[in-house]
Amino acid sequence: MELPKPIKDFVQRFSQLPGLGPRQTTRLVFWLLHQKEETQREFYHTFANLFFQTQTCPNCFFISEKNNSEDKLCEICRDRQRDHSTICVVEKETDLISIENTNKYRGVYHILGGLISEIDTAERQKLTIPHLLARIKKSANSPHKIKEVILALNPTSEGNLTIYYLEKAIRELNLDIKITKLGRGLPHGGEVEFADAETLVNALEGRK
Amino acid sequence: MELPKPIKDFVQRFSQLPGLGPRQTTRLVFWLLHQKEETQREFYHTFANLFFQTQTCPNCFFISEKNNSEDKLCEICRDRQRDHSTICVVEKETDLISIENTNKYRGVYHILGGLISEIDTAERQKLTIPHLLARIKKSANSPHKIKEVILALNPTSEGNLTIYYLEKAIRELNLDIKITKLGRGLPHGGEVEFADAETLVNALEGRK
Repeated sequence: MELPKPIKDFVQRFSQLPGLGPRQTTRLVFWLLHQKEETQREFYHTFANLFFQTQTCPNCFFISEKNNSEDKLCEICRDRQRDHSTICVVEKETDLISIENTNKYRGVYHILGGLISEIDTAERQKLTIPHLLARIKKSANSPHKIKEVILALNPTSEGNLTIYYLEKAIRELNLDIKITKLGRGLPHGGEVEFADAETLVNALEGRK
Repeated sequence: MELPKPIKDFVQRFSQLPGLGPRQTTRLVFWLLHQKEETQREFYHTFANLFFQTQTCPNCFFISEKNNSEDKLCEICRDRQRDHSTICVVEKETDLISIENTNKYRGVYHILGGLISEIDTAERQKLTIPHLLARIKKSANSPHKIKEVILALNPTSEGNLTIYYLEKAIRELNLDIKITKLGRGLPHGGEVEFADAETLVNALEGRK
């Protein structure tokens, strides 16, 4: 059957979201439409605010609440208590959140917006690699010189390729910057018996 | 870490949706925020239209696109080609859609909005059972007298309880209405070996 247009449009559009399909989206539609008017209004406003009340930090590319400051910096970049000489480079916002939630990192971040892929070369154009390099260069003559760059990328082939590329590009700046990567080995709670060979090799090499 | 307020609000609100959790919702947020402005605007409008461009049919309780008609009837109830003497009673909108998609049913519908549960008696107040009974009664003196009511409810204990209750209530109207239920047995593609006893009993009893 032809669904009513507003519902059809919604299902079509929202089933593009990662992890949602047309069936689940259809169920969401009717769930939403069965809520009280007040709840519906809250959903609507929350959705609108996501677009109208956020901004991207021009320094680290994290997303923050819109504020009246001119520099549009996010809270982390504005925080003077943090160590601005250490940058942790991550693929995406959710990686930043996971690292922040450890409460163990006090430096700042840089969000790449993706990883370098051997297949999809167009994707590389969208990454914020040039901004990262410019940021490091610019800091060289400031009191907050960047001393360490942590490449906190996924231990996958795309992650490794990006690490390789970034390491080379940063070294070429000739600014005497320490480049570090995340330790590799067995995950907490993991079992030696079931670990794959690559993980075990990493764990052996990283023994201490 | 504290997420920016518009994001925190979104995650909190949208992870209430059935089948969505905070992790997936967080991923959706950043996916949405990475789309082009035009795409974001389309998402926003589709979302707004879901609330502002829909209405509930006062006859069958299906949801339809807002139109300028005074009676606010949905397309199915307005369709003169359909058989208005047969009502198919379903639990929810998605059940109606599944039945419509068979292209085998030409009658009209009635959406109950749920099933009678032995535990949750408050839920029963929200069902459109009184509207169904009033609709049947009202039709008795009209040219479109309702002759058959199909109780197309899930073959579960709640479905059976609701069928039992509705059957009794409709019989008490004394209007000589045929009450039918969906056939029960093996699903298409099912295997006798793995069918549960209840299904096999139903299949044996419904043999023809």
